[in-house]
Amino acid sequence: MISDKMMTYVKTSSVIRAMFEEGKRLAEIYGAENVYDYSLGNPSVEPPARIKEALIDVLNEENPNKVHGYMNNSGYEDVRERIALSINEKHGTNYNASNIVMTVGAAGGLNVILKSLLNPGDEVITFAPYFGEYRNYVSNYDGILVATPPNTEDFQPNLAEFEKRITRKTKAVIINSPNNPTGVVYSEETIIKLAEILDRKQAEYNLSIYLISDEPYRELVYDDVEVPYLTKYYRNTIIGYSYSKSLSLPGERIGYLVIPDEVDDYENLVSAANVATRILGFVNAPSLIQRAVARCLDVNVDIEIYNRNRELLYNSLISYGYECVKPQGAFYLFVKAMEEDDVKFAAAAKKHNILIVPGSSFGCPGYVRMAYCVNYDMIERSLPGFNKLAKEYGR
Amino acid sequence: MISDKMMTYVKTSSVIRAMFEEGKRLAEIYGAENVYDYSLGNPSVEPPARIKEALIDVLNEENPNKVHGYMNNSGYEDVRERIALSINEKHGTNYNASNIVMTVGAAGGLNVILKSLLNPGDEVITFAPYFGEYRNYVSNYDGILVATPPNTEDFQPNLAEFEKRITRKTKAVIINSPNNPTGVVYSEETIIKLAEILDRKQAEYNLSIYLISDEPYRELVYDDVEVPYLTKYYRNTIIGYSYSKSLSLPGERIGYLVIPDEVDDYENLVSAANVATRILGFVNAPSLIQRAVARCLDVNVDIEIYNRNRELLYNSLISYGYECVKPQGAFYLFVKAMEEDDVKFAAAAKKHNILIVPGSSFGCPGYVRMAYCVNYDMIERSLPGFNKLAKEYGR
Repeated sequence: MISDKMMTYVKTSSVIRAMFEEGKRLAEIYGAENVYDYSLGNPSVEPPARIKEALIDVLNEENPNKVHGYMNNSGYEDVRERIALSINEKHGTNYNASNIVMTVGAAGGLNVILKSLLNPGDEVITFAPYFGEYRNYVSNYDGILVATPPNTEDFQPNLAEFEKRITRKTKAVIINSPNNPTGVVYSEETIIKLAEILDRKQAEYNLSIYLISDEPYRELVYDDVEVPYLTKYYRNTIIGYSYSKSLSLPGERIGYLVIPDEVDDYENLVSAANVATRILGFVNAPSLIQRAVARCLDVNVDIEIYNRNRELLYNSLISYGYECVKPQGAFYLFVKAMEEDDVKFAAAAKKHNILIVPGSSFGCPGYVRMAYCVNYDMIERSLPGFNKLAKEYGR
Repeated sequence: MISDKMMTYVKTSSVIRAMFEEGKRLAEIYGAENVYDYSLGNPSVEPPARIKEALIDVLNEENPNKVHGYMNNSGYEDVRERIALSINEKHGTNYNASNIVMTVGAAGGLNVILKSLLNPGDEVITFAPYFGEYRNYVSNYDGILVATPPNTEDFQPNLAEFEKRITRKTKAVIINSPNNPTGVVYSEETIIKLAEILDRKQAEYNLSIYLISDEPYRELVYDDVEVPYLTKYYRNTIIGYSYSKSLSLPGERIGYLVIPDEVDDYENLVSAANVATRILGFVNAPSLIQRAVARCLDVNVDIEIYNRNRELLYNSLISYGYECVKPQGAFYLFVKAMEEDDVKFAAAAKKHNILIVPGSSFGCPGYVRMAYCVNYDMIERSLPGFNKLAKEYGR
């Protein structure tokens, strides 16, 4: 009785649920402390203390009908203004409230912008490995996701293959840096080349191609690496931001879109994002947390905790013979599977109570993703298992 | 550059924005206190004090990674269990957590269930006058909204016309009681007849027709009227609930779906609602407010404040010669326009600085909606204008 499209999703999701149930089963047999779950991108670091203070201050200081009430579908004007100013300070841009649309996290923002842009059959290009939900978001609006094959050398985008995939049907490109699942930060050199290709193709086909930059991991970077702010490199750029990781608030569903004045069809696009927010049923980003994050624009979670995890897990795995590009952002390692079939490799890991996600889920078979947003102790306890696993493969 | 479908919406929404801008313009000329805005269904009564206490208690007592973290896409298990028990207590039902899906308000819930159910071309029947967004929500999934013409005698559903509209393409029926825009509560007699028609048509066509009950106004009822709990009258019923009005939290985007065990294809439908929550970009209902409302299941806003407004506005309008079915719920009056064209009548009201919404927006021309979720004082100040308006029409 459910829709045909949803039936396909339900079948797939029961496979994922089975994996999850298997984790629970292992925990029951071996004890939760002896199961090493690297499968979920759920922030383990606590939100900064300022968040709790800000929430309580908003509740004590502001009018409850305003704090919990409807506002413009794009969000509170003053919150959007403060966010715009904060972006300007950090990135030397020149935005104001009218460039910001508050969203139900990055996932909500991507749906809003894709709903705004896509006609059925329009193509959206992304780069493997990519967050699997992009396929669903694009499909929600009857668009087609076109994946550029990975560059497994360093997991920078494969720009030669990308260029070949741009057609007259290309409406948008989604990029995600720092990247899920690789943790790689796309370099300024990459971004300059990417922008040059897009500019050239826009001119060649005389159309607008929007670059959608999905940035939930922007603040999670190590080794003082710079994450280029893409609106400065390519005119038709839209940013999708989320506080899920930077403030460890994934359950609160709070983020925003940046739609710069200079993008093609700016006025209509901003109106469409506003309408899409309403008719998709978001109506607005949750109100109290909008007001709270606006008071915390200069704070982030303590990324040193993730960095310690990264160093321990990366260095240990390398010493055991694993191959992996050292990530400079996010909280994932994307490790080469020790056999061709990444699903089989993940199953072999499970025999050591190690739960990891096959790269096939990210359009990149032959690799596995390990989310190290976990307790340091868990990583330590898991290391002998990783070592044994490598030995089973002759390393 | 935006999608063709969105371009249509953007044009319509600019008409609404023009109305809003006109209100602001009037306020600037005449002073805000001399403009009488009955156009918005934005709760004016403060949230119960318990909400603030509950929010602060959750922040002080519970683990922040849990309070702000991801959970199952359907919501926290313990929150869903508590809500199920509270429904059971109030309505004598027998639900548990697995019958509840937490949603981003009622609007989010309706989108989730329609995404789960509709194939392109499927028909969804509703009853005029109806909340205009239903048309957009159904259209999001390429369904077709079929409106049953109104019964302007008492604004109970027109069941004879309803039955004629049920076809083999009918997938769902949306009803909304207490109703926006009429404030009418559908009687038990109506519900029994409606269920009888649906049962008969399901058998005749050998298909499942889901009754979706959109209930954001359930707790806002006067004169001790009973609002039947629809799952008890018709097997294939799904409830969409929201705390937006019952707790004056519309900006927080928090509500739930009830999917009873006995609906056709229950297992798949619950899974589909879970997946739809994820892929539409909601991911989950906002987390902190989930945990807070679960501590406030026995409280409501003070509806006596709305009741006073209702009595004052209704009695005054009747005394001036207006015609209106006295509503027993929600916070709207649906008043007969004093000329055939409701848009012209609303324009005539605006000359008295009275802002009201033409019934055409609700599929019911010839009427206007007045939202009395406003300050009592504003109603008092507006009465001379309503009186003059009636006199202009010879009452």
